[in-house]
Amino acid sequence: MNLDAFIITKDDRHQSEYTARHDRRYEYISGFTGSEATVVITNEEAALWTDGRYFIQAERQLSCDWSLIRMGQPGEPSVTEWLVQALPSKTVVGADPNLVSNSQWNKWESKLKEHNITLKEAFENPVDRIWNSTTGRPPYPEFQAYVLDLRYAGKKWKDKVNDLRKKLNSIGADAMIVTALDEIAWLLNIRGYDIPYNPLVLAYVIVSRDDINMYTNVTKLSTEVELHLKARNCFSDSCVRLNDYETLIPDLRTKVQKWKKVLLPAHCVMSPGASRAIYSAVPSRKRMPRQSPIIFMKARKNQVEADGMRKAHIRDAAALCDFLAHFEESIAAGKEWDEVNVSITLDQFRREQLLSKGPSFPTIAGFGPNGAAPHYIPTESQNVLKIYSNSTLVIDSGGQYLDGTTDVTRTIHLGTPTDFEREAYTRVLIGSINLASLVFPREVPMSSIDVLARTSLWQVGLTYLHGTGHGIGSFLVVHESPIRVIFTEGNLTFHEGYFFSDEPGYYQEGKFGIRLENIVEVIKAHPK
Amino acid sequence: MNLDAFIITKDDRHQSEYTARHDRRYEYISGFTGSEATVVITNEEAALWTDGRYFIQAERQLSCDWSLIRMGQPGEPSVTEWLVQALPSKTVVGADPNLVSNSQWNKWESKLKEHNITLKEAFENPVDRIWNSTTGRPPYPEFQAYVLDLRYAGKKWKDKVNDLRKKLNSIGADAMIVTALDEIAWLLNIRGYDIPYNPLVLAYVIVSRDDINMYTNVTKLSTEVELHLKARNCFSDSCVRLNDYETLIPDLRTKVQKWKKVLLPAHCVMSPGASRAIYSAVPSRKRMPRQSPIIFMKARKNQVEADGMRKAHIRDAAALCDFLAHFEESIAAGKEWDEVNVSITLDQFRREQLLSKGPSFPTIAGFGPNGAAPHYIPTESQNVLKIYSNSTLVIDSGGQYLDGTTDVTRTIHLGTPTDFEREAYTRVLIGSINLASLVFPREVPMSSIDVLARTSLWQVGLTYLHGTGHGIGSFLVVHESPIRVIFTEGNLTFHEGYFFSDEPGYYQEGKFGIRLENIVEVIKAHPK
Repeated sequence: MNLDAFIITKDDRHQSEYTARHDRRYEYISGFTGSEATVVITNEEAALWTDGRYFIQAERQLSCDWSLIRMGQPGEPSVTEWLVQALPSKTVVGADPNLVSNSQWNKWESKLKEHNITLKEAFENPVDRIWNSTTGRPPYPEFQAYVLDLRYAGKKWKDKVNDLRKKLNSIGADAMIVTALDEIAWLLNIRGYDIPYNPLVLAYVIVSRDDINMYTNVTKLSTEVELHLKARNCFSDSCVRLNDYETLIPDLRTKVQKWKKVLLPAHCVMSPGASRAIYSAVPSRKRMPRQSPIIFMKARKNQVEADGMRKAHIRDAAALCDFLAHFEESIAAGKEWDEVNVSITLDQFRREQLLSKGPSFPTIAGFGPNGAAPHYIPTESQNVLKIYSNSTLVIDSGGQYLDGTTDVTRTIHLGTPTDFEREAYTRVLIGSINLASLVFPREVPMSSIDVLARTSLWQVGLTYLHGTGHGIGSFLVVHESPIRVIFTEGNLTFHEGYFFSDEPGYYQEGKFGIRLENIVEVIKAHPK
Repeated sequence: MNLDAFIITKDDRHQSEYTARHDRRYEYISGFTGSEATVVITNEEAALWTDGRYFIQAERQLSCDWSLIRMGQPGEPSVTEWLVQALPSKTVVGADPNLVSNSQWNKWESKLKEHNITLKEAFENPVDRIWNSTTGRPPYPEFQAYVLDLRYAGKKWKDKVNDLRKKLNSIGADAMIVTALDEIAWLLNIRGYDIPYNPLVLAYVIVSRDDINMYTNVTKLSTEVELHLKARNCFSDSCVRLNDYETLIPDLRTKVQKWKKVLLPAHCVMSPGASRAIYSAVPSRKRMPRQSPIIFMKARKNQVEADGMRKAHIRDAAALCDFLAHFEESIAAGKEWDEVNVSITLDQFRREQLLSKGPSFPTIAGFGPNGAAPHYIPTESQNVLKIYSNSTLVIDSGGQYLDGTTDVTRTIHLGTPTDFEREAYTRVLIGSINLASLVFPREVPMSSIDVLARTSLWQVGLTYLHGTGHGIGSFLVVHESPIRVIFTEGNLTFHEGYFFSDEPGYYQEGKFGIRLENIVEVIKAHPK
């Protein structure tokens, strides 16, 4: 391929947070099974970037001819810094433009260009050449997509498309390429099984004035879904034409000829926006890079969704209470537990609940020092701890339900906490309550309210090094843009119907962790 | 002059907040005596912009051939919007480049350009042609400048200049033009009487690697000041060469030839930066527009200044207590008071204090509805109210002392407050205490902490429409950059030695006002 290096990202074509096993090219090439990785391979070297959750796991899983780059540690190079060291100038680095967001591509390209290194679009992915069914590549899940009933979605897909078309009209866009899977699922009121933890269908959608085109594995759409989308004999602007997933890019190149301006999703808070490949398929004068309007429509839950979110959280709370009662009794009866058992058992309790569709992300159960690592996930391959009565156990978990998505963290102690543990817990709780009970005017930026969850800790010199809140979908993804509550950035404001997490914490490295998380809803205040 | 319109600003050549009467060209031309005004005059029309403090006063003072534009009111045009309406395209608007900051100039110029109107530098000010001693122009004050003793300044001016030169060196600037009067006073440890309320000397300073040049009315420098600045026979880099004020621009044009890069003060929080005239005198390739490093040096009070600030505030508090006791007794004895009497009498009590140098801004005393206008200033020409026992009296005042500048607001009630007045007062007080007692990590942006002063009011649907805090100088100006605490903007962070106001309030329009203001100091926390 005439390349001096190749970058393998963790992205799928939709820049999803969680990806199908079929799409974990970095896992195949490196042997590393964590969920965060970027891989770079040159003719002589191979390097893998991952974050603090996975340092130990990566050390074990990578063979010794790999370099492990520990993201966030001082002195560790970025991908481009490493490439500049590894390669002479006038060399060429390849990456699959389908698997890199346009915003990430532009950053890499300009950094490499400073050192006279070219970033080249490699449309044929070299991993895909060697990783196939004969070399053990898992297929995508075969489960069919399904319709999300109006009693959970609350609004017909045609009405959502109409709202979207009005927005596109008002900014002068002839069409929009919808690339994020949760935006497609929300827009068309469909759900599926293509992505773990997220009830999504692998697809692209193009909404123009005249038609709606969907690009997906059409064999996975049930008759019910086809009827729902009015996909048969579709020749109007209010039905969905079905196309094969692989025809998106060539089809886009043709369709764009009759449009003047096309909205291409840009980076927005936690959403990376569309891939480089999508951008490349549209002539630059026709590109209208904008934050997807669907992100903002979807974030404002309608009455039915809001009601469903509340009900799902009540059932989810019952599952968690059931588990905690069972756990306490079992511990009292002398049974031994480790973190993985907590995780598996809690997931089982959740599945007992009405409308359950499984966990919304891998359940975190962190005991003692493991609880002090905010993003620790217990897996059989990690140093899972037995649970004793001498420290805290942080349980961060959530469920998918047809009527909503949940995310909740509780911290418990099976013995007698120290005074310091009690004080830290109390101050985290004060922060949580301060934020949850806030009444505020609508013009307040999200970043401004973060301190309310922190001042009780700051008062005694403590803090936590993660954000306080993130948006959450309605039977969609658990980290949903545009909501992020962190004091360092964010000028967006809240709207009625937004749901987000309120999750302050405290972590004493090597000792214990505390985190308390609830989902809060933005409602209209009626102060006296 | 071949101009179709002329803009008269309230600026002096240093873009000062308060200006000498000699520099109030808008006052001469319009008859309006408020402190905030922009005037535009065409061949047919004349318009004056002012803010909410002065609407009533401006209506009274302007003759009926003037248009009064009420800034901040919906539908009122900006200066450029008004000009675009008043003038056809291909016309020319003039302004005095000495009296407009470069940042303001650029904004006006680009807006006018969109409508094919030119903004032209008029170095000869048409007001100055007609306003002189024979037409009643007041001269600058004749009081001489003086040295601020090291026991108040805490650091020798040579050490300050050395620190500044290091900073200039580190960013590759050969010189800096110091244009803000408080920066000059701080840098050289001198004070004067040229500006009301602010102890400043009208001057420019150029600091280069090789020399320090001051441009001022040299007759107003006492022998003491000349010796302090080593101004006689000055031929080294550590003495100040004195030049006539008017020679700055021609001198700058000459000097700049031997420099590669010159730091020109840019807009910084509440500081407008250098004038258009200064920018124009430096070829654009040599300009280095930056926030003045002196702003950040000056904001961190040294030990002597910090100590002086604390002492000045204690004496100032004594003056305010003295006044309040006197006022209460006098009211109890049946004496009638109005707002102007409060203001005059409080100023007198302040002058009794050790090291007093007068008020630091016009004393605000607002009773009832006047207190509900946050920036109301009682003057004989305004609707001064008699003070009764049926509403609140807001007193916002401050003093200049050789060892510090103060700014304090108290709200009192001479009768029995209503339940609502009590609740509003209590909630303002809670906000004030919340902010004053904050312990925080150094990376927290100023904008983030504003909400702490507001949540107690928000909780019951109340708020206030001004910022919560501003920096304050050490025997300098009362609104000092770079500190401003307001949730809508500001990514700068705090440093030890910063002093700023903590002033939440509540205003019920037409009824009553509440504001509580203290100056707080950023100190190193020692949490357990």
